[in-house]
Amino acid sequence: MSISHLPRLISELPHAINQRVTVGGWIHAVRNLGGVQFVVLRDGSATVQLVLRKSLISVNPETVVRVTGIVSSEPRAPQGIEIRDPEVEILSEAANPVPIDVAGQFPPASLPTRLNTAAVALRHPQAQNWIKITAHLVKGFRDTLSSLGFVEIHTPKILETPSESGANVFQIEYFGRPAYLAQSPQFYKQMMVGSLGRVFEVGPVFRAEPHDTARHLSQYTSLDVELGFIEDHHTVMDLAENVVAGMLQEAKTHFGDWAYDWPLLPETFPVVHFKDAMAMISRAIGEDVTEEPDLSPAHEAWLGEWARSDFGSDFLFVEGYPALKRPFYTHLDPGNPQYTRSFDLIFRGQELITGGQRLHRFADYIEALKRRGLSKHGMSGYLAAFLYGMPPHGGFAIGLERFVARLTGVSNIRDVTLFPRDMKRLQP
Amino acid sequence: MSISHLPRLISELPHAINQRVTVGGWIHAVRNLGGVQFVVLRDGSATVQLVLRKSLISVNPETVVRVTGIVSSEPRAPQGIEIRDPEVEILSEAANPVPIDVAGQFPPASLPTRLNTAAVALRHPQAQNWIKITAHLVKGFRDTLSSLGFVEIHTPKILETPSESGANVFQIEYFGRPAYLAQSPQFYKQMMVGSLGRVFEVGPVFRAEPHDTARHLSQYTSLDVELGFIEDHHTVMDLAENVVAGMLQEAKTHFGDWAYDWPLLPETFPVVHFKDAMAMISRAIGEDVTEEPDLSPAHEAWLGEWARSDFGSDFLFVEGYPALKRPFYTHLDPGNPQYTRSFDLIFRGQELITGGQRLHRFADYIEALKRRGLSKHGMSGYLAAFLYGMPPHGGFAIGLERFVARLTGVSNIRDVTLFPRDMKRLQP
Repeated sequence: MSISHLPRLISELPHAINQRVTVGGWIHAVRNLGGVQFVVLRDGSATVQLVLRKSLISVNPETVVRVTGIVSSEPRAPQGIEIRDPEVEILSEAANPVPIDVAGQFPPASLPTRLNTAAVALRHPQAQNWIKITAHLVKGFRDTLSSLGFVEIHTPKILETPSESGANVFQIEYFGRPAYLAQSPQFYKQMMVGSLGRVFEVGPVFRAEPHDTARHLSQYTSLDVELGFIEDHHTVMDLAENVVAGMLQEAKTHFGDWAYDWPLLPETFPVVHFKDAMAMISRAIGEDVTEEPDLSPAHEAWLGEWARSDFGSDFLFVEGYPALKRPFYTHLDPGNPQYTRSFDLIFRGQELITGGQRLHRFADYIEALKRRGLSKHGMSGYLAAFLYGMPPHGGFAIGLERFVARLTGVSNIRDVTLFPRDMKRLQP
Repeated sequence: MSISHLPRLISELPHAINQRVTVGGWIHAVRNLGGVQFVVLRDGSATVQLVLRKSLISVNPETVVRVTGIVSSEPRAPQGIEIRDPEVEILSEAANPVPIDVAGQFPPASLPTRLNTAAVALRHPQAQNWIKITAHLVKGFRDTLSSLGFVEIHTPKILETPSESGANVFQIEYFGRPAYLAQSPQFYKQMMVGSLGRVFEVGPVFRAEPHDTARHLSQYTSLDVELGFIEDHHTVMDLAENVVAGMLQEAKTHFGDWAYDWPLLPETFPVVHFKDAMAMISRAIGEDVTEEPDLSPAHEAWLGEWARSDFGSDFLFVEGYPALKRPFYTHLDPGNPQYTRSFDLIFRGQELITGGQRLHRFADYIEALKRRGLSKHGMSGYLAAFLYGMPPHGGFAIGLERFVARLTGVSNIRDVTLFPRDMKRLQP
């Protein structure tokens, strides 16, 4: 089947030299030069230069037009082509002035201004590229996992009881009773390991964290993976390493010539145990942090530098986090049960992935809940999975927007999030 | 890169004949026959027969084991292979009795029982197949659109003002103020057409509809598409037809030998105008329904029969719905403005897709809102897109679970939904 009625994209024009084509787009920029008008037309897929000598146009930037003309080879123009003296039909005139200079240097305005005017600010080619690289990373994620037999799932975002901890959860009014927005698909992906063995999900998660920082959002896209029949958390780390490589490979195929600093990606990521990391950091900063139960952002940054200088890697696994700071379903380290079979993947000095081996025996869950003083209330459907046979399993989650932010080097995660939501922002 | 540590899947074993392998799985079924034990092992990817003659096992069904042995060719066994006298290691013994007969005929229990025991009921091969066919349909959706230059997006599910109508929306407590769960990504996908021209999203949508029926859920997965530079709604219908064909093609590649009735899928779907459909139905049922503003489920069922008998098609486009029943952003039919440039795609007598052309000029939005008596409150970010240049555009949305239900012939959408949510159900 062919889609005869779909209009042609500007990105397809280099294959249409000497053909008469019709394309639509936005008037991106106009330059008048001695009676000749050079117009850049943009349609989201690419830009093309129009050269007008006969009838010049006078329209506001961002006006939407349809143009018809013959594609000519022109090595000095974008994509090596231009359309000379096309017919131009105005479809929708833009008001003037446009609140954002879409064709100018990035950033065209402050971040709050860009977020307030997102419908226009997201037309800037820099913003478009961030959205496209995000889509390619997700495609790399799915393709890598599908090729390994993982099945994509879609799980509930509305829960009867708060998942995991109960803190920082949004409450909903659900047909006259309270319910909660899911902070992660954790319980569901584990139950689905019981069915399909290997699953993944790409979906929104919701955190009511009262943090107004450059890296916190109340909604973000979580890339979740879970698999059965692992040896221990190292099986999961091995998979995570391959998934990250697959994501970057897919993005690089399409954005290889970007100005971004491409990550240092060794064949195998370096690994350090939490205990050893804390000892190293203590020596380096001249202060004993070995009793602290978690890495601070400053510690993560230090480890990022260390991985880069000592291993030539922008990625570093930290394994064996203390049990105190990991959720109740985390598998303890049998040799040293104050630590766990868990890991974080640090990317350029910031946590990107959290994962590990989970408990898989019913009795271990009952004991872990009791030890933490947590109620089984609302968990019977989840715990049933472990009562009726579950394999050793584990998984991980990647914060998509955080990955893109760190990859592209933006200082605020909101730059690479479509219409971000935070403590103060619910618009547009 | 290779993933050396990932365990082997049972589905890979036909390529490993005469090799010594280790696989994990659940004890699906055990049959004792004259001193020989035939065990079916299941891992979510496939099943394999184990033949035990030396040391027989005695475990509860659903117990998780790891087995090591040599793969032998055996034409009478599933996948044409079996493993004779493997070493069997018990990883996790299942409690007895299991609440669902995972290895029996489908359905193993009533729908409410299966939903209550989902962590086990979803292990039934029938349920596994429904999840897998769902994943393949989504892959077909994405692949078809990506090949046409569409970019995947992820948009907010938490809104400051109820989207579209304000009815049937869930309210959230958001940092001390009210907010609402998105009923669709409509406004966001339209704004993104202004940036990228062609976009799609796969994500949850939330409907607080007080309907306790076999086809309503409070959360479902919406497959959303939007594109610019269309001629009218026919461009969108043409795309929808190709997307549906691409989804079914991908599913059929993997599930071609299923017992399901594969849909009658003509090269081009038949189209009928709403007005003509109502006139036909009136004649057929001997009752004048031509003044009704929408199709009832009975009308849709009648049209489904008609498309099948007269066009040999399980799909039928109904175009030109009355303006009264379509949202404010719907483009009116210029020749007859009480009708619209909108459509539904009826699949086997039930609405599967809703779509159409949208308004694209700012002034038309202001007028449409006024005509409906709707407030602009909270819409300024959305309306800005139209003030600063938007092309003629349109799109559609597919209800994923409804597609799977209709394709597989289940009578209740909950059968093919992972952990469904409805008026009464929030568990597991």
